[in-house]
Amino acid sequence: MNKVEKIQKWLSDNQNDVALITDPKTIQYLTGFYSDPVERVLMMVVFKDSEPFIFGPALESEAIKDTGFSGHVYGYLDHENPWKMIADQINSRKPSGNRYAIEKTALTVDRFENLKQVLPNADFETNLTPFIEQMRLIKSADEIEKLNIAGKWADFAFKVGFEAVKKGVPESAVAAELEYALKKKGIMEMSFDTLIQAGPHAAEPHGATAGNLIQDNQLVLFDLGTVWEGYISDASRTVAVGKPDDKSMDIYKVCLEAQLTAQEAAKPGITAAELDKIARDVIDKAGYGEYFIHRLGHGMGMSEHEFPSIMEGNDMVLEPGMCFSIEPGIYIPNVAGVRIEDCVHITDDGCEPFTHTTKDLQYVD
Amino acid sequence: MNKVEKIQKWLSDNQNDVALITDPKTIQYLTGFYSDPVERVLMMVVFKDSEPFIFGPALESEAIKDTGFSGHVYGYLDHENPWKMIADQINSRKPSGNRYAIEKTALTVDRFENLKQVLPNADFETNLTPFIEQMRLIKSADEIEKLNIAGKWADFAFKVGFEAVKKGVPESAVAAELEYALKKKGIMEMSFDTLIQAGPHAAEPHGATAGNLIQDNQLVLFDLGTVWEGYISDASRTVAVGKPDDKSMDIYKVCLEAQLTAQEAAKPGITAAELDKIARDVIDKAGYGEYFIHRLGHGMGMSEHEFPSIMEGNDMVLEPGMCFSIEPGIYIPNVAGVRIEDCVHITDDGCEPFTHTTKDLQYVD
Repeated sequence: MNKVEKIQKWLSDNQNDVALITDPKTIQYLTGFYSDPVERVLMMVVFKDSEPFIFGPALESEAIKDTGFSGHVYGYLDHENPWKMIADQINSRKPSGNRYAIEKTALTVDRFENLKQVLPNADFETNLTPFIEQMRLIKSADEIEKLNIAGKWADFAFKVGFEAVKKGVPESAVAAELEYALKKKGIMEMSFDTLIQAGPHAAEPHGATAGNLIQDNQLVLFDLGTVWEGYISDASRTVAVGKPDDKSMDIYKVCLEAQLTAQEAAKPGITAAELDKIARDVIDKAGYGEYFIHRLGHGMGMSEHEFPSIMEGNDMVLEPGMCFSIEPGIYIPNVAGVRIEDCVHITDDGCEPFTHTTKDLQYVD
Repeated sequence: MNKVEKIQKWLSDNQNDVALITDPKTIQYLTGFYSDPVERVLMMVVFKDSEPFIFGPALESEAIKDTGFSGHVYGYLDHENPWKMIADQINSRKPSGNRYAIEKTALTVDRFENLKQVLPNADFETNLTPFIEQMRLIKSADEIEKLNIAGKWADFAFKVGFEAVKKGVPESAVAAELEYALKKKGIMEMSFDTLIQAGPHAAEPHGATAGNLIQDNQLVLFDLGTVWEGYISDASRTVAVGKPDDKSMDIYKVCLEAQLTAQEAAKPGITAAELDKIARDVIDKAGYGEYFIHRLGHGMGMSEHEFPSIMEGNDMVLEPGMCFSIEPGIYIPNVAGVRIEDCVHITDDGCEPFTHTTKDLQYVD
């Protein structure tokens, strides 16, 4: 059963008739075609018992067909009303009933109101999102292969980046060097803005790479990832310039222990919450619990915002094929920040990381 | 009146009590703080008659406060329920009534259902989006200054990029060179993925930069932009390698005439649709109308997806301070594609572009 057939079966099993798919990532997952149409409309319509179609901007039609999508592709021009055109196509196919499943996390209130207007008899109660998330949760061998390749490019980026770290160099120049090296190899897309943070700047876990100059005796935090055929990598390392102070060295040691302990413990049968606690306990015991202010990890695959979320309260049991980050962090304001992260996939008896750059503290300059 | 006060006045004028702001760009527009929290929740709450607050991930709280935002900032941890916490904060302030204006284009159905659950007595009929769009439509002198700086960096990127174009070089290497040069200057963020397309590849207006090698006697299309303090640039140029065939040269000539004619005509009093038609008429008359498959332009400022949309059917009258692209394109499948684009702001008697790279055809190799 292919992915579209799985959705058709789900519609049937759940007494729904039509699935309206509006998350560009879901469309990519189902067809291989990706485009973020922003204010334009892109929708894939899957019927319980007839062929799906894709509706989108006319200027994307050829690219959609090029993916080999076998259903119809309809394009609209900027001045046309896409909602009416979608409704006309749906109605012309006489769906088996009026129950529509929608991606509630990927449909705005505004667009939902448009849909309700053009499909006045539709029942939109059913949320398709949980089923799609469930489908995407367990990665196939093919997906894991792509994640491994994306991971190899992250390792390459670390290597180039570590060489670029020198006292007096701005954080931004380090990011420039590693992204340039990737692009020269044809890796055009980072999975998110490369983060390079030196010294106290690294204590702002969501700060941005800036013009701060790297100084002697500092830790420098890297968080980066690449995209390979729609699948991402995401990894963090923290390296040393000169001889950082004792506090910095201590939080590195504790963070590393937390990361290694959790990665060792990740296997089928343990819950997400239990895994989070294993890392958190290491950091709590060392007295830094208050400085570990985020969950241990996030699911990943086509994006870094998938399931399972590795956090307190999530009793999801880990299974082979689940992919997520293990990224404890300790951030002491105005002092230093450390984060060490691999993304892994659960195997039959443990887990395997997608990145292999050493986690022993590297002295890079 | 500052921007928050304008929203408070609008609430008052429209018999609404609370504005729930969920578009990260709107929050940036109002406060200077930007973060895309993705699956986490970030919301600014503006009351008709009391102080606003911002609610978001705990790990962003310090960054929000650093912007100088004078209201309260509340953070939540990953395992906490943000919706209940938001409702508690709102209720503790005893709003003047139960009418809530929401950003319908920046709130998902899923989140809307959460809001309805925690604020069961709220009336969410009012859409705040049109008022925010209206506020953002007319740029201040300060905003235009930032757009000019972003434009200067786009001009710099063209210069570097044109030098990198050579036969036998992949499109991706040209993008690598110009982005590297920008990052070395501290310009870390492109406003969208840099597009370099050679020869027939440029006939796919939404294709991506790839490993295609630039060949002799081809046109090469550039579409790129940078970000400066939250404001973007966006410009396209098409350059020649060797001596492209007559058809390519002809579509360049026609596209340039359309661009220049429209840019000359852009001034207060003309409508968006009229401006689109001025460019379209030039291309129609030359016999290429069927190959100009998108609107003439889009509004821009903090993103390339603002108003006014320069297209058929939009009777909005242009006014000083409006900013948008003028970007006719002619795309002949399997032959060549040309797009020439400046973004401009309307002045008292015409318009001024943010980019100044020559539009005369450049022979770069």
